[in-house]
Amino acid sequence: MVPLLVRGPAWLFQWRAACTLGAFVQQRTWAGVSRIPGLGGPLVQRGSSSASSQAPEVVLTRERYPVRRLPFAQVSEDDLAALERIVPGRVITDPEELEAPNVDWLRTVRGSSKVLLRPRTSQEVAHILRYCHERNLAVSPQGGNTGMVGGSVPVFDEIILSTTLMNQVMSFHDVSGVLVCQAGCILEELGRYVEERGFLMPLDLGAKGSCHIGGNVATNAGGLRFLRYGSLRGTVLGLEVVLADGTILNCLTSLRKDNTGYDLKQLFIGSEGTLGVITAVSILCPPKPSAVNVAFLGCPGFAEVLQTFSTCRQKLGEILSAFEFMDAECMKLVELHLRLASPVRESPFYVLIETSGSGAGHDAEKLSDFLEQVLGSGLVTDGTLATDQRRIKMLWSLRERITEALSRDGYVYKYDLSLPVERLYDLVSDLRARLGPRAKHVVGYGHLGDGNLHLNVTAEAFDVSLLGALEPYVYEWTARQRGSVSAEHGLGFKKRDVLCYSKPPEALQLMQQLKALLDPKGILNPYKTLPARA
Amino acid sequence: MVPLLVRGPAWLFQWRAACTLGAFVQQRTWAGVSRIPGLGGPLVQRGSSSASSQAPEVVLTRERYPVRRLPFAQVSEDDLAALERIVPGRVITDPEELEAPNVDWLRTVRGSSKVLLRPRTSQEVAHILRYCHERNLAVSPQGGNTGMVGGSVPVFDEIILSTTLMNQVMSFHDVSGVLVCQAGCILEELGRYVEERGFLMPLDLGAKGSCHIGGNVATNAGGLRFLRYGSLRGTVLGLEVVLADGTILNCLTSLRKDNTGYDLKQLFIGSEGTLGVITAVSILCPPKPSAVNVAFLGCPGFAEVLQTFSTCRQKLGEILSAFEFMDAECMKLVELHLRLASPVRESPFYVLIETSGSGAGHDAEKLSDFLEQVLGSGLVTDGTLATDQRRIKMLWSLRERITEALSRDGYVYKYDLSLPVERLYDLVSDLRARLGPRAKHVVGYGHLGDGNLHLNVTAEAFDVSLLGALEPYVYEWTARQRGSVSAEHGLGFKKRDVLCYSKPPEALQLMQQLKALLDPKGILNPYKTLPARA
Repeated sequence: MVPLLVRGPAWLFQWRAACTLGAFVQQRTWAGVSRIPGLGGPLVQRGSSSASSQAPEVVLTRERYPVRRLPFAQVSEDDLAALERIVPGRVITDPEELEAPNVDWLRTVRGSSKVLLRPRTSQEVAHILRYCHERNLAVSPQGGNTGMVGGSVPVFDEIILSTTLMNQVMSFHDVSGVLVCQAGCILEELGRYVEERGFLMPLDLGAKGSCHIGGNVATNAGGLRFLRYGSLRGTVLGLEVVLADGTILNCLTSLRKDNTGYDLKQLFIGSEGTLGVITAVSILCPPKPSAVNVAFLGCPGFAEVLQTFSTCRQKLGEILSAFEFMDAECMKLVELHLRLASPVRESPFYVLIETSGSGAGHDAEKLSDFLEQVLGSGLVTDGTLATDQRRIKMLWSLRERITEALSRDGYVYKYDLSLPVERLYDLVSDLRARLGPRAKHVVGYGHLGDGNLHLNVTAEAFDVSLLGALEPYVYEWTARQRGSVSAEHGLGFKKRDVLCYSKPPEALQLMQQLKALLDPKGILNPYKTLPARA
Repeated sequence: MVPLLVRGPAWLFQWRAACTLGAFVQQRTWAGVSRIPGLGGPLVQRGSSSASSQAPEVVLTRERYPVRRLPFAQVSEDDLAALERIVPGRVITDPEELEAPNVDWLRTVRGSSKVLLRPRTSQEVAHILRYCHERNLAVSPQGGNTGMVGGSVPVFDEIILSTTLMNQVMSFHDVSGVLVCQAGCILEELGRYVEERGFLMPLDLGAKGSCHIGGNVATNAGGLRFLRYGSLRGTVLGLEVVLADGTILNCLTSLRKDNTGYDLKQLFIGSEGTLGVITAVSILCPPKPSAVNVAFLGCPGFAEVLQTFSTCRQKLGEILSAFEFMDAECMKLVELHLRLASPVRESPFYVLIETSGSGAGHDAEKLSDFLEQVLGSGLVTDGTLATDQRRIKMLWSLRERITEALSRDGYVYKYDLSLPVERLYDLVSDLRARLGPRAKHVVGYGHLGDGNLHLNVTAEAFDVSLLGALEPYVYEWTARQRGSVSAEHGLGFKKRDVLCYSKPPEALQLMQQLKALLDPKGILNPYKTLPARA
């Protein structure tokens, strides 16, 4: 067992008890129900339409979770007619077409929305929200629907406001690298667009093939380039947002610096569509590096992973652009479910290091100097290096496709934690011992360079007693290390009641005040981000 | 005359007229008064105590500007006794001691506060604010008092809350580089502290010798390392803030990633003490680069400066850490008032380029490749290179001390603008033609790499007609380019009424709502940041 040092601030220990009373304790409401059928089925690749007709049906959120519908109006025939006037031909009510957008891609939550709208412009979004606000109709904004916490699908019958048709690049400045585009542009397509012009999107993630930039910003997505290019809070220069009452807030500046008053766009970054609907994004793209290398290494232990990281930062300095790790269990799952082969000898841990620089020769020299040191000192026992695009992509896929492999392994309990790097893997080992054979696999991987652990536990199917062994244990462990119970995935629906493990009551109160200020009727993405009130 | 392209958004042209009715049009209230004595006197170096007894007295803000005292309570003997109980021995009422903190370092605004408090802890700040909130006493938070826009001194008799004694480093993590410290730590001292441990503060500015980190964060300071290490919105990981009613908001996390709810700390970054008092800061320090080079170059024209910048980004890539420019007028002033000598032949423009990297040999090679190209193609006509600390400092001082040289030249009209780089210098040339001999000097310099122009106009003394020729002309020019009328200095007292040149009315309204939510009585740094209501 891990020694649980009491290092948290005073509020943590006063408040934690309240946390355990939230909506996430659904296991209590199912006492005696140990397995729920219809879970743990096969999963399609992240970002693809998840409502495959072959897959077993996902249990409705309102049936699985102890959540009550708030007193919003219900969509009437008159409403449909009015909405049809706002977005003619783009009001979707066909039950079949509504199946996929009602279910999250992990197939763990399902809403019962009967209407999906596909606006093309911010003005249309404004008209929709003004109407819904007046009529007290709840709205669930949806981008690529690739979220991990049930934030992008309705819980009940909220109207789904899809950004799918808002996919236009508005401008690109090829000196400054500032891209301005609509919220529904797909990340990978934007990446191609700016790369053709000598730039790079400052963020990259596994779901890039279908996630929308608006959703990325709304969830403050982290991802694989965070270590080098930092947070969206720095790279997003401007936003256009439609507020709950239909007001268009135009803060779509392309300036790197602007200290004229409060930086309102920050309110909406990471607010998961609960404070406003992001309709356009201005983002600073760094120049595309001319030389990229990827090294995939095997390490004999986690201590060696950490030392490899220190050596790496020292030797590679400014050219380091990613430092990812995965454990042997991850590799097993990737080999088993996706038929990918490990490029190096079997090891307890694997590390993926990417460099991005402006001088191929210099970078190769730095990398070889680094590799010599880590191989010579036994920190690394085996490794392979890629410089061409195809091999680089292949090595990255081992890391990027872990999520997919996990999904194929059964029902997945997902945790996305920020922890002090030196304690990062202790939780995985600890949990493996705690759960024993009850779990199919307990795996740890993630963005080590950012202190971000993805902890995943798989089982044949959803199991209430297993959930009870995981929660609140994982959250309490994290809180004791003063970590974050959601590093990059956000809170959405599934994690909203664990906020208090990482934030004091004063912060929660201010968040609730902000929500009340910006969305007094609470119509925007209800049941998300903030805990249910007692 | 510069062709004024109408490129701004619709709201700009609807709303701009309202801007010109704000408090900054004080020249109208002084019709007929062309020069005001007691201005344009000698200035001490930025950050030193500005209230030298030799300097002529600065006119009281309340006498110079058309601003009315809001109905706050006045400090009574009972209040002094109560405050003395909260911060025993640290309630300053001696008029002589209060002189300096009542005047901004530019010597352009002066308050008449009769009380200054020096808390040591966040708890003391909380007690002070709770008391002031109950008693309806206005408070002006003050760090190093090095601001450019009159944001850090009282306008009337606000109680000055100084962070001077809150100067303790709370923790430093020598693997992650996360520094946690009290708000009153001086930037330069923090720099020394982290550099001894192999790291670097992610921001650097001319006032580093006296500015406080809390003030830097409260004003979202940009400065000289912005190009490389980005905005404080990315590097500040956590804040502790005391709200207007004395509530301590503890968001002092040291995590790189934390998506648990809204990112409240962003509200306070750049809010200039109007939403809360920052009492502690957690900030991510990058590793100290092992090799630093500075090149100082002369360019024959601004077009060549821009081309040098493009070449520089391409050739130096990830090792580029600063790209600053100054015009020939700046160099003249630095030579004249500070007796600094130009290290290169006289040129219309000068550029300072800094590289920071991990391999001295590699960096030197890249730099020499770059220099060869810009010298060979005539973009640069003369240049010098420094690699040792002393020479690097000397070259930097030419750029860093321009502000000081300007202050010695007379009364300074200061503008800090974000503009599209390709139009950046047009405004300077334009203004020079417009003002003719009415101005002593019209100079342009700044952070070219960030599109940030410092435009300064000097005159023998404050001159109402000159001000009328400058404003709103400069702001309208900037707004037409969709620039920012305050790139990094903030709005404070002096620029609060020009906010509307860069922000739409919907944004202003939301800012006012946020202010009302967080500080319902308006006691925190009143008369700052937000425009005076009509």
